[in-house]
Amino acid sequence: MKVRRSDRLIDMTRYLLERPHQLVSLTFFSERYGSAKSSISEDLTILKRTLKARGTGLLETVPGAAGGARFIPYIPQQEATEFVDGVIESLSEADRFLPGGYVYMSDLLGRPSVLRQVGRLVATQYLEDEIDTVLTVATKGIPIAQSISDYLNVPFVIARHDSQITEGSTVSVNYVSGSSSRIEKMALSKRSLTPDSRVLIVDDFMKGGGTVGGMQSLVKEFDAKVAGVAVFAEGTFEGERKVPKYTSLLKIHATNDHVDVTAGNFAEQIYTPERLTQFQD
Amino acid sequence: MKVRRSDRLIDMTRYLLERPHQLVSLTFFSERYGSAKSSISEDLTILKRTLKARGTGLLETVPGAAGGARFIPYIPQQEATEFVDGVIESLSEADRFLPGGYVYMSDLLGRPSVLRQVGRLVATQYLEDEIDTVLTVATKGIPIAQSISDYLNVPFVIARHDSQITEGSTVSVNYVSGSSSRIEKMALSKRSLTPDSRVLIVDDFMKGGGTVGGMQSLVKEFDAKVAGVAVFAEGTFEGERKVPKYTSLLKIHATNDHVDVTAGNFAEQIYTPERLTQFQD
Repeated sequence: MKVRRSDRLIDMTRYLLERPHQLVSLTFFSERYGSAKSSISEDLTILKRTLKARGTGLLETVPGAAGGARFIPYIPQQEATEFVDGVIESLSEADRFLPGGYVYMSDLLGRPSVLRQVGRLVATQYLEDEIDTVLTVATKGIPIAQSISDYLNVPFVIARHDSQITEGSTVSVNYVSGSSSRIEKMALSKRSLTPDSRVLIVDDFMKGGGTVGGMQSLVKEFDAKVAGVAVFAEGTFEGERKVPKYTSLLKIHATNDHVDVTAGNFAEQIYTPERLTQFQD
Repeated sequence: MKVRRSDRLIDMTRYLLERPHQLVSLTFFSERYGSAKSSISEDLTILKRTLKARGTGLLETVPGAAGGARFIPYIPQQEATEFVDGVIESLSEADRFLPGGYVYMSDLLGRPSVLRQVGRLVATQYLEDEIDTVLTVATKGIPIAQSISDYLNVPFVIARHDSQITEGSTVSVNYVSGSSSRIEKMALSKRSLTPDSRVLIVDDFMKGGGTVGGMQSLVKEFDAKVAGVAVFAEGTFEGERKVPKYTSLLKIHATNDHVDVTAGNFAEQIYTPERLTQFQD
């Protein structure tokens, strides 16, 4: 059955968008639509142009009969900045202020439109890196880790403070929680990470960096490598954090009676001059 | 700037797929592409046909100048069955068997391709219902809840066993954990659910139904309504569960030395005769 170009374009868009970073072969599309590879190649050229022009992502095309296409989602700087500004505005509402200088943000981290943009943003930073697994610790880092894993199209794994029978054998580490100086423990299923894999560490909030440090120790116990650290928000911290270079979307400065939310360091981390060139038309 | 049909179709596909269940107006698309509403209407007709033919979802079009289109994702029965069969095959591997008759499945629930299909599947059941919020309890129900929330395009909220300062004021309930007959507690931020809202309860695993029962009590405390219950897997349970009608993707029957995994009740729950008519060409 031969398929019209308009139908092919719609279905290819859907198919590629659901499989970020995965190479889909010309042969596959050619058989799916009963169309010549030359027509599929033309379709991919149109797709590439539109996805770039609309700031949706890059379509990497691998030439030749054995080639294909890979969709790499990204978010342009302006859209990212507008998104973060919107989040700052929401979080600055007075009724979010909680006793002890905390900010209520669980609602935002349960909203699909917010999580999608957080995922796109962090995935933009790692669009050319090999990431094998996203690692977070229960509970509040999970939604962010999941969204990033969705856009990078790699699995995510969850370390836990309480090890559960359903995790099988686990590896656990002790770490000093930066904010309270207490010794805490986190465990990760032995089946979670493979040696030499590249792991992106993700959490919702980082203050002293103790929890992120715990995750770094876990990664080391598995003989894997930390490929990066990304947090939704960082709190103000006096002193030096024992964490590698990290990316934050927001900075939260809380005092006893109010909270200042500003943009994190994402712009300088993600929108490097070379990446900006790549995104431009 | 006028935009060619092929470019419009690619961008509209992307735009609508990222916003399931949301009405996007003809006016919006017409301004976005500098094209006449009549051309946009034709585009939508093509989109509708392709999305249906490929089993991606329904495109509901609202006629008239004030109209627009709404993308309703679903998964056709055959694709759903093949997906669940694949999961059964994975889970039946001998090395997943854990002491005490448990099955290791955390890796599957961290894999984007699996989570997307779980989300599509459960969203298919509720495609015509008004769901306002998806509710789960930490930790392992979260990824499933998030994926369902993504396809229904509604927020999800997380009840917790330990109430955290960052949740603000909470409402808590006690419940009897079915499997261990212990009294447990779960808490949910007071800001999470609104009165009269319709809540879809989600968890990774249900045995006696105690945890699901706890979530039902929570919903009641908020004067909200349970719109449905969906679990990834149900375990064998002798006796009557005190839960309403539920949907399960898998049934897990564990003995001391092996585990049987079979399909849950999803087919009879989701693929009702009327829904099948709707999906057909």
